[in-house]
Amino acid sequence: MLAHDIAADALLTGEHETASPRLSAADAALARHSVRSYRDVPVTDDELHRLLELTGRAPSAFNLQPWRFVVVRDQQAKDQLRAAAYGQKQVGDAPVVIAMYADMEDTMAHLDEVVHPDLPADKKAGTIAMLTNTFGSMTTEARGVWANAQSNIALGYLLLIAKSEGFDTSPMLGFQADQVKQILGVPATATITALVALGRGADDGFRSHRHSIERVATFV
Amino acid sequence: MLAHDIAADALLTGEHETASPRLSAADAALARHSVRSYRDVPVTDDELHRLLELTGRAPSAFNLQPWRFVVVRDQQAKDQLRAAAYGQKQVGDAPVVIAMYADMEDTMAHLDEVVHPDLPADKKAGTIAMLTNTFGSMTTEARGVWANAQSNIALGYLLLIAKSEGFDTSPMLGFQADQVKQILGVPATATITALVALGRGADDGFRSHRHSIERVATFV
Repeated sequence: MLAHDIAADALLTGEHETASPRLSAADAALARHSVRSYRDVPVTDDELHRLLELTGRAPSAFNLQPWRFVVVRDQQAKDQLRAAAYGQKQVGDAPVVIAMYADMEDTMAHLDEVVHPDLPADKKAGTIAMLTNTFGSMTTEARGVWANAQSNIALGYLLLIAKSEGFDTSPMLGFQADQVKQILGVPATATITALVALGRGADDGFRSHRHSIERVATFV
Repeated sequence: MLAHDIAADALLTGEHETASPRLSAADAALARHSVRSYRDVPVTDDELHRLLELTGRAPSAFNLQPWRFVVVRDQQAKDQLRAAAYGQKQVGDAPVVIAMYADMEDTMAHLDEVVHPDLPADKKAGTIAMLTNTFGSMTTEARGVWANAQSNIALGYLLLIAKSEGFDTSPMLGFQADQVKQILGVPATATITALVALGRGADDGFRSHRHSIERVATFV
């Protein structure tokens, strides 16, 4: 755990100190691309805390926030993860690798934490009963799939916010999930949403082309 | 389809005209929350085109970009969608409702469009063969689930970018998917990622609380 918190006030007023430029979401979307080589510059506790706090602002259905994070800076752990990720060098080389995962079983076991604290007690109980019924009637696997889709909303937030704050990233799906879970102590029923290498890029990375709007959108 | 395009140059240089303030990704994440009442102010073709172009910058594994959009402004279509969405008023009232969906079958049928155009022909063919093999060995349902997770990364982008550009949103998962597909002509094998009401908010909406970092993150 981090030794200290950033005051919520500083986050809300944008007064948190940073040497990084802040890009608009639009400029971050245009500038961001996957980077596989990183400079040997640490990402500080404050920077990581801020990134995850902002990522956690992502919306989720019923406010369930099923996403969880393991932030890996220990070199031995990164080396183990790299082996589980088919040797992808950014897993070993980036100053930080964030393992994002969706844990719907932990979410279900603590529904009292996600129901709005201002609700009256009877409404809280009713909401928890509704959620327990809705997701309890699904298989563990099916609700895990649902939670992982939600966790990917937060992944979109993380990647865009990181770029806006001056960091580069490389999200990865190429890994042996069972090994990653074992290395990091992630529950077997959880789904690894992605491994995300994060740091300050040493090169420009690889620019992917994208579909035109006309290819993917219809207007009614 | 839109009658005109925004020049890519304008997007890339950020010279596109807008009356909206541009928030950093961080400020957008802090300011954004679901809004269910919208002012009767149209969202222009240019604004929509820009939002979707930026949303389409989201990363996806193998650059598959399986997300698709139906942008609904027609009142009759919105009213039909509202009925399919259990009467949620923002579906009928917001100036725009974007139905995001993941269409992995369309993606698979056009892999040539997502392989990088600069690759030599033999590498292109090899990549297409690898992708065809990888996803062709999955069931339609399983690869649809995979594509929907990817589409949610773009949903995170859309929600954050919309706020940064001065729009409010309300993403929804509460709808009868079969009806939504039928109303909008979305293929039965596709997955509706979310309905997203979009416009300029008429009220402050509902602020959800979020987990603390300590609750969802472990540092290694």
